[in-house]
Amino acid sequence: MDYKKLDNEDLKYIIDLVKDADRVLYGENINEEYSHDELSDTTSYPDVVVKVTSTEEVSEIMKYAYENNIPVTPRGSGTGLVGASVAIEHGIMIDTSLMNHFLELDEENLTLTVEPGVLLMEISAYVEERDLFYPPDPGEKSATIGGNISTNAGGMRAVKYGVTRDYVRGLEVVLPDGRIVEFGGKVVKNSTGYAMKDLMVGSEGTLGIITKAILKLIPLPKKAISLLIPFPTLEQAIGTVPLIVKSKSIPTAIEFMQREVIIDAEQYLGKKFPDNSSDAYLLLKFDGNSTEEIERAYDSVAKICQEQGAIDILISDTTEREESIWKARGAFLEAIKGSTTYMDEVDVVVPRSSVNEMVEYIHNLYKEVNIRIKSFGHAGDGNLHAYVLKDDLSEEEWEEKMTLAMDKIYNKARELEGQVSGEHGIGYAKKSYLMKSLDPAHVELMLGIKKAFDPKNILNPHKVCQL
Amino acid sequence: MDYKKLDNEDLKYIIDLVKDADRVLYGENINEEYSHDELSDTTSYPDVVVKVTSTEEVSEIMKYAYENNIPVTPRGSGTGLVGASVAIEHGIMIDTSLMNHFLELDEENLTLTVEPGVLLMEISAYVEERDLFYPPDPGEKSATIGGNISTNAGGMRAVKYGVTRDYVRGLEVVLPDGRIVEFGGKVVKNSTGYAMKDLMVGSEGTLGIITKAILKLIPLPKKAISLLIPFPTLEQAIGTVPLIVKSKSIPTAIEFMQREVIIDAEQYLGKKFPDNSSDAYLLLKFDGNSTEEIERAYDSVAKICQEQGAIDILISDTTEREESIWKARGAFLEAIKGSTTYMDEVDVVVPRSSVNEMVEYIHNLYKEVNIRIKSFGHAGDGNLHAYVLKDDLSEEEWEEKMTLAMDKIYNKARELEGQVSGEHGIGYAKKSYLMKSLDPAHVELMLGIKKAFDPKNILNPHKVCQL
Repeated sequence: MDYKKLDNEDLKYIIDLVKDADRVLYGENINEEYSHDELSDTTSYPDVVVKVTSTEEVSEIMKYAYENNIPVTPRGSGTGLVGASVAIEHGIMIDTSLMNHFLELDEENLTLTVEPGVLLMEISAYVEERDLFYPPDPGEKSATIGGNISTNAGGMRAVKYGVTRDYVRGLEVVLPDGRIVEFGGKVVKNSTGYAMKDLMVGSEGTLGIITKAILKLIPLPKKAISLLIPFPTLEQAIGTVPLIVKSKSIPTAIEFMQREVIIDAEQYLGKKFPDNSSDAYLLLKFDGNSTEEIERAYDSVAKICQEQGAIDILISDTTEREESIWKARGAFLEAIKGSTTYMDEVDVVVPRSSVNEMVEYIHNLYKEVNIRIKSFGHAGDGNLHAYVLKDDLSEEEWEEKMTLAMDKIYNKARELEGQVSGEHGIGYAKKSYLMKSLDPAHVELMLGIKKAFDPKNILNPHKVCQL
Repeated sequence: MDYKKLDNEDLKYIIDLVKDADRVLYGENINEEYSHDELSDTTSYPDVVVKVTSTEEVSEIMKYAYENNIPVTPRGSGTGLVGASVAIEHGIMIDTSLMNHFLELDEENLTLTVEPGVLLMEISAYVEERDLFYPPDPGEKSATIGGNISTNAGGMRAVKYGVTRDYVRGLEVVLPDGRIVEFGGKVVKNSTGYAMKDLMVGSEGTLGIITKAILKLIPLPKKAISLLIPFPTLEQAIGTVPLIVKSKSIPTAIEFMQREVIIDAEQYLGKKFPDNSSDAYLLLKFDGNSTEEIERAYDSVAKICQEQGAIDILISDTTEREESIWKARGAFLEAIKGSTTYMDEVDVVVPRSSVNEMVEYIHNLYKEVNIRIKSFGHAGDGNLHAYVLKDDLSEEEWEEKMTLAMDKIYNKARELEGQVSGEHGIGYAKKSYLMKSLDPAHVELMLGIKKAFDPKNILNPHKVCQL
């Protein structure tokens, strides 16, 4: 693609526009962090980073970039795993992390309006203090809400509550040409034209820059209790999940985990997990408004687990124990990362009934490809996180084996009618697998949508469906 | 727009393709029903109606239409209210009502795969018999699921369960050029490219023809109990709603109704409603898995209602009483229609906190414009249905007063940050109001999306965002 290379004149224009030189980084002032995200090996520096503070600023920058054909990459806190926030074509990076204000809590409509740079952990603290609840709960709490919306992050409570898209009611978006539009609003239902709000959610910064979000809140459940359930085998553990889902007691979360990942987490956190004696575990959470209500729900589920061969049912009914379990669960990614030299991720999602086949397939790849792979994930919604580990392989061996393992995993997911990504997105790193999994007509439609929003292709080029 | 007028050669091609002359209607064989929908005054005959029976047939017809530049209009059972299924440019009408098969019930993944012509009432009967539940519950039970998906129908259980889009996991779609694509699938989470499934839902037959849908089911709640709550004034009734929504007991439905509409329904059904002595009512429904659980939920809500001045709390805990109340509620549209010579509808949605202001405004329009308007609706989600009645006005008076009333209502909805349609869609009849309510940039994006799907503009032209 033929973009204008950012020059001193452009830089001067941006500094004048922003009126605060401290918020414009260039040359040696650009921290290395800005050249990559949390995991993918995609590395590329922007020519300039602008730490924006308002919608108008974003709009003015986009207008200038559009007129001058300069590529722009939006970035939150850079916790993505697939390279979506890396400035492949350099140019301008718009860092939204200073747009981190709570704009309005509307208790009558149960909405929270925020700027995109507010962190997930800040949102949960803010609303829970007020007896309200924002259910999406991805592991990475230092992600920005703008980033969560851009990947349609799922998280651990999706089984009962759904994903980020379900909790975004309205968005303010700056289009690639600088125009500001609003999609949705505070309304609960909407059949007014095409589903622009839903389309924007999960578009990974390729269609517009989110500058404001109206989130849906619900009343905070008064209590939550978790069950940690050891099983003799992973197969038995996962085989139990469809039976739980079919029962009338829907847990908030159904996670599966294996001993080796638990041990990684113990080492990483320097803290013991309540149990690590079994090969495989289900971790269930139930929430509700009274202990009796929750007990009734988990009693029937505990019975199902026992019938399926569970070794024990460990109930965590104190806040302390609850926190320690979920903190360990939240640290899995970092713990695995700490256990190897380098790794790459897989975020496939398959129908719930195929989780066992998928997990077993990944497990057996170790022997077939001779590379270490660790996995854990959301058994309740079929979304698996598998990490292929480099350990002490040479670059060459790593490339070869990793590629082979990836190819096989994505092929298997396709065979099981799964999809490439359950919540991490496609970004830059997973494009080739997306292309293999979709019909050419489907890709054409996505490119057509991209063109409708960004005819000059200046916003986050080479991402999602663009080669 | 410059389309090819359907001629005898085209007709012959279609009959040969379908191989069953009984399924191809033309000339005098086209029933008058095919020239309009349930309410809008948009009237136009197609040149030919094809009662399709398979995806391949739809694909072949679209290919031919695309090559020959013939407009195509999809139609389910024609119960829409805004003219979306009317063949404005004539050409081919694809009637999906014979594609009415249940394809698969997957009890492990809790999905139901159906053809688009299956009726909403057939779905609820089929799944509830099997102890499963498809929550979306629009009043019009003889609508097809394809039609429900095309308007993103909401219905009465949206307060607790959400709308149609939330229960569509995957779609098979025939594109305007005849290619067949699949969006989504049986997976529960999906961040794999743009939200094509979500975009297709609510696109009112303008982007593609839905030929198969994978629906999400949930376990059937064991019991439901309704409360009919008379209030001295409508203002008090509706003012109570935000307090209910904020409480921790979320009802399945929160409907408001007024005496005059209840009396219409009594006359229409020839059956007494449990109570018609008050000016205004809230009708609440609670569901759950035990009587105690439901009682606990409605006890706290009943208390809130009493504190807000409710006259009484009428509990309907027998199936018979429950059915009679909801049957009356389901008949409101037909009952109002039966009480006048002609009418037109408004389906605005406003933030829940503004429902009272909106309802009061509509109520007072009677004096201002001197035209009868009846309203009822989903107080729990801010979606109001108001019907402007012609009675014995002359055509001229009707046009003038109806237009004035409509303009005023939509202006007021905009002022309250509402949207043109909560669930009925835009179709043909509401386009001018949509155009007034949206930013030109927003309309441009929608037209760009339409172009990406339908570059020759042959599928359902003049609908939603197209003048």
